[in-house]
Formats: sequence, C-alpha cells, structure tokens
Amino acid sequence: MNAAILSIGSELMEGRIADTNAAFLSERLTLLGFRVERHTAVGDRREDVLAELRACAPRFDAVIVTGGIGPTPDDPTREVFARFLGVELVENALAAEDLRALFARRGGIVPPASNAIQACLPAGAELIRNPVGTAAGFSCRAGRCLFFSLPGVPAEMKEMYRLSVEPALRRMSDRVILVRSLQTFGMPESLIGERLCEMMTEGHEPAVATQAREGVITVRITATDTAEAPCRARLEAAEASVRERLGDCVYGVEGDSLADVVVARLKARGLTLAVAESCTGGNLSAQLTDIPGVSAVLIESAVVYSNAAKVRRLGVAPSLLEAFGAVSAEVARAMAVGMRLSSGADLALSATGIAGPGGATPEKPVGLAHIALAWAGGVVAEEARSFGAFRWQIKDRAAKRTLNLLRLHLERGDPHG
Amino acid sequence: MNAAILSIGSELMEGRIADTNAAFLSERLTLLGFRVERHTAVGDRREDVLAELRACAPRFDAVIVTGGIGPTPDDPTREVFARFLGVELVENALAAEDLRALFARRGGIVPPASNAIQACLPAGAELIRNPVGTAAGFSCRAGRCLFFSLPGVPAEMKEMYRLSVEPALRRMSDRVILVRSLQTFGMPESLIGERLCEMMTEGHEPAVATQAREGVITVRITATDTAEAPCRARLEAAEASVRERLGDCVYGVEGDSLADVVVARLKARGLTLAVAESCTGGNLSAQLTDIPGVSAVLIESAVVYSNAAKVRRLGVAPSLLEAFGAVSAEVARAMAVGMRLSSGADLALSATGIAGPGGATPEKPVGLAHIALAWAGGVVAEEARSFGAFRWQIKDRAAKRTLNLLRLHLERGDPHG
Repeated sequence: MNAAILSIGSELMEGRIADTNAAFLSERLTLLGFRVERHTAVGDRREDVLAELRACAPRFDAVIVTGGIGPTPDDPTREVFARFLGVELVENALAAEDLRALFARRGGIVPPASNAIQACLPAGAELIRNPVGTAAGFSCRAGRCLFFSLPGVPAEMKEMYRLSVEPALRRMSDRVILVRSLQTFGMPESLIGERLCEMMTEGHEPAVATQAREGVITVRITATDTAEAPCRARLEAAEASVRERLGDCVYGVEGDSLADVVVARLKARGLTLAVAESCTGGNLSAQLTDIPGVSAVLIESAVVYSNAAKVRRLGVAPSLLEAFGAVSAEVARAMAVGMRLSSGADLALSATGIAGPGGATPEKPVGLAHIALAWAGGVVAEEARSFGAFRWQIKDRAAKRTLNLLRLHLERGDPHG
Repeated sequence: MNAAILSIGSELMEGRIADTNAAFLSERLTLLGFRVERHTAVGDRREDVLAELRACAPRFDAVIVTGGIGPTPDDPTREVFARFLGVELVENALAAEDLRALFARRGGIVPPASNAIQACLPAGAELIRNPVGTAAGFSCRAGRCLFFSLPGVPAEMKEMYRLSVEPALRRMSDRVILVRSLQTFGMPESLIGERLCEMMTEGHEPAVATQAREGVITVRITATDTAEAPCRARLEAAEASVRERLGDCVYGVEGDSLADVVVARLKARGLTLAVAESCTGGNLSAQLTDIPGVSAVLIESAVVYSNAAKVRRLGVAPSLLEAFGAVSAEVARAMAVGMRLSSGADLALSATGIAGPGGATPEKPVGLAHIALAWAGGVVAEEARSFGAFRWQIKDRAAKRTLNLLRLHLERGDPHG
C-alpha cells in the first residue's frame, strides 16, 4: 500500500519552520508497511490545496493532511475538503462538546464564535477527536484513497495520530507489525553492519535496519505476520540474536538516552555521582540534568576550564599539568579522583580534551579527550576521539563517551559501586 | 516571481530525516522577493522525479532541486534531468578537475570510478561548483523555468546556494533587496509587536517582521528598491527606528547568540568570568563553552546541585539555605559572591531555581529561578520565570536570562567591571 503526506501552511512556504510532521508521519507509516511516495507542502491558497487533493485521490491508498484547520478565515483545509467531496460543512455534535469542555477547563469561558468553525466537518466525514487543542480532525474516503486531516501543531498531530490514525491504518492492513528499537553506543555503524550483515539483507524477516543520530546508533527490528503471537515470537528471537551479536554496546530500548540509563542505574543502587568537566564545558552535566529526579543522584559538578581551577577545585597537582599537559590520562585521572574525594560522591567522572577549533597540536588534535572514572575501588582512564563539524558536536560526543564509561562500569557490577 | 522546492531522497520518504533544506531555501527565496508556492519531496524512483520536473517547468520561474546527485546508481537526479531536457550526460572538465583536486586534498588518491559520474552534467547545463564535497551542481532552463540542482547534504547545499544560486536569483530580479536581522532578548514578542506596530503593518516599506526561537525574538527588516543606495539608506533608517523603540533588549545582529555577545564584551574589556549553576544544570556553562576561544574568559563553573555542594564549594551559609530555601534571591546572591571570591574571577553569575517537573510548591512553581551577578562593585539578584514543556527548555531560558543580566551590566559599563 502506498501513501502520501500533504502539509498546509504559509509558514512552511516562507521557511519559518521545517516540516517535521512529514518526517514523523513518514517514519510511522513506513513502520506500518506503507510505501510513502511523496510529500507535498503548499500555502493557504485554496486552489493549491484543492489541486493537491485531486492529484492524490487516484494515486494513493492513504493521504495524511496536516495544517490549515485553525479558527481563522485563512485556514483552508476544512472548506476545501467539502468542495472536493461536493458536500457541505456541518457541525459535529461531539466535536462541539469537546470544544466547550476544553474552554471550560481553560478557565470556564464560552468558546469565541471564531472557534465554532473548528467543530465543523465535511458532511459524511468521520471525526478524529483532539484531546489536546481546539481543532477537530477528520477522515474521509474519496475513491481508493482514505484521507486523514490533522492539525499542524506537532503535539496535537502526534497525539491524534497515535490515538486514532494509526489504529485506522493498521485496520487497512491484514498484517500485524511489531517494532523494537535497541539503542547502542560505542560500536561504529559499519561494524554493527558487519555483525548484523545477514539479518540486514533485503527481504530478511524480521527486517533489521540501523540509524545514526548524534553518536547513538539505533538498531530497529520490524516483524510482520498475519497473527500477533508468531509475530511477537519472531521479534523476540531477532532481538535476542541482535543483542548477542552486539554485546554490551546495547544500552537501552526505544527513546532511552545514555543519561537516562546511567541515572536509573545509579538510583537503583543508591549511588551518588559528581562530575569534573573541562572540554565538555558543562554539556555532560546538562545531559544528566535533563533527566527529572537527577538531584537524588548528582551531588555536583565542576567545569574546570582553566588549569588554576583544576588545581584549586580538584587538587590536581601542578606538576602533573606541567609534565603531561591538561589533556592527558594522568590529569583526567587526577580530576576524577579529586572530584570524588572533595564531593563525597560514590563515583566521579572527568573529561579533559580539545574541543577546537584552536588549541590543537599534531599530537593532540581537535576532538581528542581523556576521560576517567573514579570509584571506591580505583580509577580508570580512557582515550576518546570525537568527530564533528562544530564545537557542540565534539562536546556532545565526548560527554556521551564519558557517560558510557560509567554505564559499562555499572553493568559490570563492581561491589565497591 | 514564484518558485518551488523539490527534494529527492528515499531517506525523506522513510522519515529518517526532516527536510530542513526546504525550510532554509524557502526563507532565503522569500527574502529575495520570490513567492514560494510549493515544496515536493519524492524518493529515488526516476519516473516520480521526471513527473515533478515536468509539472514544475510551466508553473514556476525558479525551482531548486536538492538531493539525488551522489555517486551511486540509485541517485537519479542527473540522469532524469538529461532525459527531461532530451540531452546526453557529458563530463564537465572543470567539475572533473574539482573532483580530482578534492581527492588529492583528502589524501592524495585518485577518485574512484564511481565518483566520475559526479562530474557529469546534462549537455548545455551550467556548472555550479561544489567547494565542499564531490557532487557538482548545475543549472538549466526549461521554458520559463530556471532549475538549480544541488546536493542534499545541508552544508554543501548552503555553501553552493550562497556562492552561486543566490547571485543568479538576484540577477533574475530588477530589484535590490537588503535584509537586517536584530536579535532581542527580554521583551515579550507581544510588546515588541506593540512598539513596532505601525512598522509591521502590511505594505510598510521596509517590511518589519518578528520571529521567536527558543526565547530569542528576531526582528527582521527587509528593504527593497530599484537601486542600492536608497535601499540601504531606508534599511538603516528603519534599523535606527527599531533600535530606538526597543532599547536595550536588542543585543546583537544576524546569527549572534547571547553567549557570543557576552564573551566578546568580556574579552574586549579583559574581564574574566566564573559561573555557579543549580537549576540550569550545566546549560549556562555549555552555552558559554560553545563559543570558540571562551577559555580566555571563563575561569570555571560549578554545578552545585545539592545544598551540601552550595555550602562546601561556594561558602553559602547553611543558615541562609534554611531560612530562605535554596531557590531564593538570598542564596542566588551568596552563590555569585562565593563563586567570585573562590575563583578569583572579575565577575560571577549564579542561577538557582526549579526545573521541574518535581520540586515545586505553590509559592515556588516550576520555572521560577533566582539569578545573580557579583562584581567588584557589588551584587545584584533578579527573579526570572521561564516557561517550557520540557526541562531542557526551562534550563535554556533560565540560562539565557542569566547571560542577559551580565550583558546588560556590561553595557552599562560599571567602572569596576
């Protein structure tokens, strides 16, 4: 089955926002087994929208339309659909009730007259309720094509897609599709490709694919079948096989970040952490503090950008800095040990390196970092090389390498923490 | 004049990436006075690409095509253009030379045979040189429409657009268009709208528009004229008027971040900075350390997440924490003063607040922060409320508020630094 995405909004034509809705929907549809063949975006002009609906109807099994269902007169979608289908716009009682309830929750006021249009649908269309905002969505059929009209606001669109559109799309197919994503860090995508080579060949069932995003490689396993039980069994067998081939570079599932996993493991074991950063410049702390509830785990961190701060805050010996330079395994170790002792945390991480573009030498290129972990049982350092076109990328990768050092340590389960 | 964007790549159809190229190009074309009427994206299938070229040629004055000019057989764009134009693909001597030179720079090797196709253009097309990568671009005319074919890799596309496409588009128009962007922080978009009300009415020349992005409001002034000198004069007059109406919330121009401006001002005056963060959790340091050369300015920073760390690292009195709580003006001041004294920096910033979702009380809601600045001449604290759906947004806004406190202090030019 094939599908298309149609996005409506002059903000897209003026480049004020990128069309992330089309990417989200395409990924979801592809996972459901649809072949997405086309994205189109047009502005608010009614004749442009109408021409697109007419072009799509004979060509696609499913078309998802986003945008153009706001309360203002320049929102064209509802009206153009009615014209396209040759029907009137009529108020949908349930949509009108949802609208009144939403305004009541937002402060007990009656919906302004301008919003009333948002409860109107083309006659015969099926309501797609909006649990988040004021714009009701709808679905309708034209020939072979099932159209879905959703708001352009990503939070509303995604929720309505999840609750109403995806179940309807699944019903269009007689197949069960189950997906599992494994998050990995530390093994290059090319090596993952080699290890999973035969599972990644075209036609292999379940299908296995990789995707790289900011240093994290996601392995996605998609199983399809006519019945749920065998489908799940094959998905689980494939997951076990992928885990066995990739070993401990698999750190989580679905949307897990390295910081999520590290914070959860520390919490589960009642351990505390402190961080001493140089080249990562606060990014390592920022990744950790993105996790709600991290304050139960993170005692403190220090961005010791200058050598003076490394000496004063962490007790790094000036002789070490002089003998090995700030970017060295010796100084990384001393930073971690110094931070652990002075903070009283169970574990301490450190990172020192060259974020660039200045400060590099032939021996110490941009992207080089030394990272270390100190715990009650000892201290370990590692050399990490990170690549990226921008400082923030190099900082981000070095921070992830440091979090990964801690993750692997926690997985090995040292009795000293 | 009207225009369209055509993006080619199966990674778009599978939702693996969002089409940010279309947004970038639409913004630039709109600024040049083109009306962008349509974006289309299709996969690698040759018949889909050909159908799009045929549909666009009679309808648009300019079409920018991105993607599909890589070295592999599934890259369709070059070949489909040749078919569309009814010509052969021929090697372009200058493109072949660029390709050899690029490979030589990358390690002295001869380009693999697969890359040779990247120096081929449809006969009669004009080369668009690629100073960054291996894919040569080209432009060609079909009827009223001027087509430009560029790589899909954003860094290559943008550089080729800037060097070759934008000058060609400017030549298509007899009008001069000049743009000035002013970056502001601290004044709500609605108040900016009121202050600039008459300049923002439709048809006002120069045109003035605002755009909000992660707490920064950009005011964009666009002047158009048939000659350069009067155009520039009107742009400058409008800029002066906007600056007068908005006062010191204007912090920079074009792509300036708050951290850019703060670091540049500190450098220019030879001042050093230290940072004590709690709720911002490293984000404030990370924004500063995104700026190359910040190490000349930033001595250190401390993420004092626990009360114990606030006491130990910064000398905050436990009685203050007990009496006012960690999220208070008193503690923010003590953090800034303590950091300034212990680091030896000329100035110190602090932020303490509630990033959420937990930890809030009716008096201290999620998003509340107290921020402070200490310098030789004293210490000042400010209450800041930040809004956002995610922790990272609240952290980001609070960090920007803190940078802005320092920026305004530096602009006032206290003789003590």
